[in-house]
Amino acid sequence: MIVLGLDPSLTCTGWGVVKSEGARLTHVANGQIASSPREEIADRLAALYAAVTEVIVRYRPDVAAAEEVFLNKNPQSTLKLAHARGAVLAACGAARLGVHEHSAKVVKKSVVGTGGADKKQVQAMLKVLLPGAKVAGADAADALAVAIAHAHLGPRH
Amino acid sequence: MIVLGLDPSLTCTGWGVVKSEGARLTHVANGQIASSPREEIADRLAALYAAVTEVIVRYRPDVAAAEEVFLNKNPQSTLKLAHARGAVLAACGAARLGVHEHSAKVVKKSVVGTGGADKKQVQAMLKVLLPGAKVAGADAADALAVAIAHAHLGPRH
Repeated sequence: MIVLGLDPSLTCTGWGVVKSEGARLTHVANGQIASSPREEIADRLAALYAAVTEVIVRYRPDVAAAEEVFLNKNPQSTLKLAHARGAVLAACGAARLGVHEHSAKVVKKSVVGTGGADKKQVQAMLKVLLPGAKVAGADAADALAVAIAHAHLGPRH
Repeated sequence: MIVLGLDPSLTCTGWGVVKSEGARLTHVANGQIASSPREEIADRLAALYAAVTEVIVRYRPDVAAAEEVFLNKNPQSTLKLAHARGAVLAACGAARLGVHEHSAKVVKKSVVGTGGADKKQVQAMLKVLLPGAKVAGADAADALAVAIAHAHLGPRH
């Protein structure tokens, strides 16, 4: 099973692809899709949609996974995040790719062993779980974490 | 100038196309894009993206206009709205269509003459401004109103 993990945001969307064969997990690729606040929002969202489509065409995942959206204290940040998520999910839907959502707690518990793990612990575990993988940045790391969690949880989740 | 007005929502997105030639305004078409809560959100967003693209290809607008997003008291409603908006704006961006945003107050003031007008007053004015137009529903009416407002405000807005 090839799993595409996604961490959508308007500024920088992380993505990560892992392959799971039984208990064996291997890193395939990861990256980040950045956009500039100087551009129009419709153009940024169109570029995000196109970039996610390209990743799907290239790595042919069987399933996608994303963290459940959380409500930021700043409503404007939540709005921007949800706009980006709308474009990313539309690209997955158009490619007939199912998107499973997992809470941040479930992702951390699955990757580190505890739902209260911090970002550094998650990134340290990525090095253990995906040895040799060069991670593009913090957003790509989050995307790999949700992909790993989905692979651990199994296809029924 | 052909203006596409958009009123995005996950349940039912309204759209309306008007043509403005100097002071003359004519109705071209309007409609609503509905989706079922029984479907997966990624599929609903992909269908919305595809339907908006179809409207753009069919009516070849020069510009698009949408109401500025408002923050619903229910954060889950705001999230759903912003997801739909993200897919709709991505479709506009992919078609190289600029999207202008106007506040609800500006739209009402432009269509009815007062920023405090209610939905019924807006719908009554649509009958006056676009005689003979058969409006698909309340969401299509909102979309036509924002298209008219953008035509009134002129290309610089």
